[in-house]
Amino acid sequence: MWSLGEIANHVGGVVQGDLDYQVASIATLQNADSQQISFLSNKKYKKYLAETSAGAVIVSSDMASFVPSHAIVVDDPYVAYAKIASLLNPLTRAPSGIHPSASVDTESDISPNASIAAQVVIGSGVTIADNVVIGPGCVLLDNVSIGKSSRLVANVTLCEGVKVGERAIIHPGVVIGADGFGIANDKGKWINVPQVGGVLIGNDVDIGANTTIDRGAIEDTIIGNGVKLDNQIQVGHNTVIGENTVIAGCVGIAGSTIIGKNCIIGGGVGLGGHLELVDGVLLTGMTMVTKSIKQPGSYSSGIPAEETHKWHKNVIRYRQMDKLTERVKQLEELNKN
Amino acid sequence: MWSLGEIANHVGGVVQGDLDYQVASIATLQNADSQQISFLSNKKYKKYLAETSAGAVIVSSDMASFVPSHAIVVDDPYVAYAKIASLLNPLTRAPSGIHPSASVDTESDISPNASIAAQVVIGSGVTIADNVVIGPGCVLLDNVSIGKSSRLVANVTLCEGVKVGERAIIHPGVVIGADGFGIANDKGKWINVPQVGGVLIGNDVDIGANTTIDRGAIEDTIIGNGVKLDNQIQVGHNTVIGENTVIAGCVGIAGSTIIGKNCIIGGGVGLGGHLELVDGVLLTGMTMVTKSIKQPGSYSSGIPAEETHKWHKNVIRYRQMDKLTERVKQLEELNKN
Amino acid sequence: MWSLGEIANHVGGVVQGDLDYQVASIATLQNADSQQISFLSNKKYKKYLAETSAGAVIVSSDMASFVPSHAIVVDDPYVAYAKIASLLNPLTRAPSGIHPSASVDTESDISPNASIAAQVVIGSGVTIADNVVIGPGCVLLDNVSIGKSSRLVANVTLCEGVKVGERAIIHPGVVIGADGFGIANDKGKWINVPQVGGVLIGNDVDIGANTTIDRGAIEDTIIGNGVKLDNQIQVGHNTVIGENTVIAGCVGIAGSTIIGKNCIIGGGVGLGGHLELVDGVLLTGMTMVTKSIKQPGSYSSGIPAEETHKWHKNVIRYRQMDKLTERVKQLEELNKN
Repeated sequence: MWSLGEIANHVGGVVQGDLDYQVASIATLQNADSQQISFLSNKKYKKYLAETSAGAVIVSSDMASFVPSHAIVVDDPYVAYAKIASLLNPLTRAPSGIHPSASVDTESDISPNASIAAQVVIGSGVTIADNVVIGPGCVLLDNVSIGKSSRLVANVTLCEGVKVGERAIIHPGVVIGADGFGIANDKGKWINVPQVGGVLIGNDVDIGANTTIDRGAIEDTIIGNGVKLDNQIQVGHNTVIGENTVIAGCVGIAGSTIIGKNCIIGGGVGLGGHLELVDGVLLTGMTMVTKSIKQPGSYSSGIPAEETHKWHKNVIRYRQMDKLTERVKQLEELNKN
Repeated sequence: MWSLGEIANHVGGVVQGDLDYQVASIATLQNADSQQISFLSNKKYKKYLAETSAGAVIVSSDMASFVPSHAIVVDDPYVAYAKIASLLNPLTRAPSGIHPSASVDTESDISPNASIAAQVVIGSGVTIADNVVIGPGCVLLDNVSIGKSSRLVANVTLCEGVKVGERAIIHPGVVIGADGFGIANDKGKWINVPQVGGVLIGNDVDIGANTTIDRGAIEDTIIGNGVKLDNQIQVGHNTVIGENTVIAGCVGIAGSTIIGKNCIIGGGVGLGGHLELVDGVLLTGMTMVTKSIKQPGSYSSGIPAEETHKWHKNVIRYRQMDKLTERVKQLEELNKN
Repeated sequence: MWSLGEIANHVGGVVQGDLDYQVASIATLQNADSQQISFLSNKKYKKYLAETSAGAVIVSSDMASFVPSHAIVVDDPYVAYAKIASLLNPLTRAPSGIHPSASVDTESDISPNASIAAQVVIGSGVTIADNVVIGPGCVLLDNVSIGKSSRLVANVTLCEGVKVGERAIIHPGVVIGADGFGIANDKGKWINVPQVGGVLIGNDVDIGANTTIDRGAIEDTIIGNGVKLDNQIQVGHNTVIGENTVIAGCVGIAGSTIIGKNCIIGGGVGLGGHLELVDGVLLTGMTMVTKSIKQPGSYSSGIPAEETHKWHKNVIRYRQMDKLTERVKQLEELNKN
């Protein structure tokens, strides 16, 4: 249990009500009870505020008067909620040491307070810093290095020589450092181009489940500090992702593309190879990017769903646009005379 | 070997021919031999019926007279084929008990007739019901529970607290309960929003290879009874998928979207976040859904492939549509006079 | 260290300069030093040639005079680079034998010079040929067979009966032989159609990280010799991919589709089920294929990104095309008179 005073103090907020009121956990406005704290950040949910049973609500100052119970007033309720949820849900500390079922090469350098779980495999030349957690079933091939306080949840695969920074969180099924897709056509037969570059993952990077990040062909694939990647993203060889860029699920990035800092890339976007995106680009979901983007701003493509019979008709019309343009041109000729 | 009488009885069908005729396995019309049974459900394959060497064919009554050998006449040949294929290909029963190489926490509760394969990791507080099969390399983190007769094929990862119902089939590489993609921008730096909700998987759910289902932010992500998910689907946090909905491969579903019952979602579809789809929605492949769908029916988007030089031209025409509309307007003005 | 004479000999090239000059590794024109060899294949990078510090550069004859140091002159610099990079970066030979932590069924047949790494699981009836490498954490269910010199990097899952040819490279997270997505609607409830076909992978096939290839429903899913698959590709049941076809990342192929030989399929393409593509088809990235393609050549679809406010306007115009066509028709009627 935490008092509202302690919680407000944690986020630099102001309590409206009883500083000593105690809450135990976070819940939504609709489902919170009196021992829970909730929050209002999206104004669309304001309708739930009047009837909430939450013991306290995190709000911005303009909403404070609508809270029926205690309030914690902050500048940004969503950020405050994130921090308070972290406070109320501390991570369980994984036990230090190496599980007896793990297979760890003697030529590795593992901090004594790192945690190596069951069925893990650690190759030769691997270095693992303080407070790192390697969850069950992870495989770290030779010469991988992991910076302090990083966490590999489970069944993560890091291929040879991959370097991960500090405080990374890597979710299950992630594969980093597999060979990039480099092939050369030798008189009709495809031969492999050896992928001898590496992968550098910065600090404070999160990587979602089943995301894949390929190693570079000659130089490295680079993921900048503070980058957040969702699930099932494909990052091709020699891609560079700038600091604090966030990428939603199912995005595919072809090789050698350079993405700037502070970009926001929506789900299902596809980026061609050898492109350059400046800092501060926003791409809405399922956008198809075939050219470099040289100005910050929001870009989109794709046509949203409509009823199938209308879609059929519109596709036909689309195919006739050339003819339609010709017909308009002929009318213009006629009307000149 | 099974007699046609036994087989027909299993699916409520009627034998046309010899009740005692024996078949051993299922094959296609083109490749079946006299000890095999085949089926005709898609009329497009009727051409293969006359020349099939199959010992017997499962057909609807209107096709029975065209079968050159024995027939089993049923209402729905595809459903009957499914049931007969199950009858003729019973699953091998995995051996009960825990493989010596598995790592099982002593604080777990595992049915004595469950099967725990090699290199499995089972955490604290896990409960595994009767007849469950946990295949090689699976990782079940703390407090997972699995209902009776469910089967995890191999290398599946279930994160903390995930609850799976009865008779589920979960294919290799699936990750359930990884953190949802919740981040908050704290003065230019992204911080994580703790994902403290869970995942509830209903009964009779199938989940295809390398599909990912994230845990909820506060409340649970929910997959209803009888849902069938193909491979490489991404299900965001707090998504709810209604009963008997089927989703083909490579679909991406952003967070907090609610999908109704009995929906059919084609491959490669993308669904935005915070949407609501009513029951009985059909989405054709690669459709982009950016708004809620409030009426059942079929919806589509996307423009199918054409030759690249035509595509180039059409894209240019598309970009000129605004101008074209303006030109038509001017013609209309001219023609008013 | 390798002399330029030896290197040129390996690729049938001609040295311009000192045959005995020694280099140790490959680097880009921009970053190479005097002990490194670089290459110029894309003319776009010619600007880096004059100022490179590379000890030698692989070039075509028309570029040889621009090389400031030694040159190796070849017909195809990219192919020569691939071969030279292989020469300079030989794979470390994995140790023969079975790691003590691996779990190998006694009823399997494993070549004594195969390498079976830590935490591997090998089922009954598995056969593994000479020089095969099975990396850490791989699971091979019963009756899998792997041809000589194939390599499974780590955490690969091969389901029952999957057959892999010779010299395959299978990257981490790949799942081959999971059940195809076969379901039948039995009066409103979906039942599974047993997937009793197998998967045949030819010789010299590469399969990228987290790609999934489903087993056939009745007959086999087939990947031809020399096929190269990138990451996160989904191959549905009974798909057939012809020899030497290459497929980039994030492609989804629905069931029973037949792809010809020597096709090139760009990233993020979606292919519907039961289609047929002839040999020599090229599909640009994110193309949506809903019909068979009967002529070789290049095909495309999708509209590339534009600024979001223009996109909004164009989508509206797209929806109005039917009306616009009607307006043009009315103008034509007016102008007839």
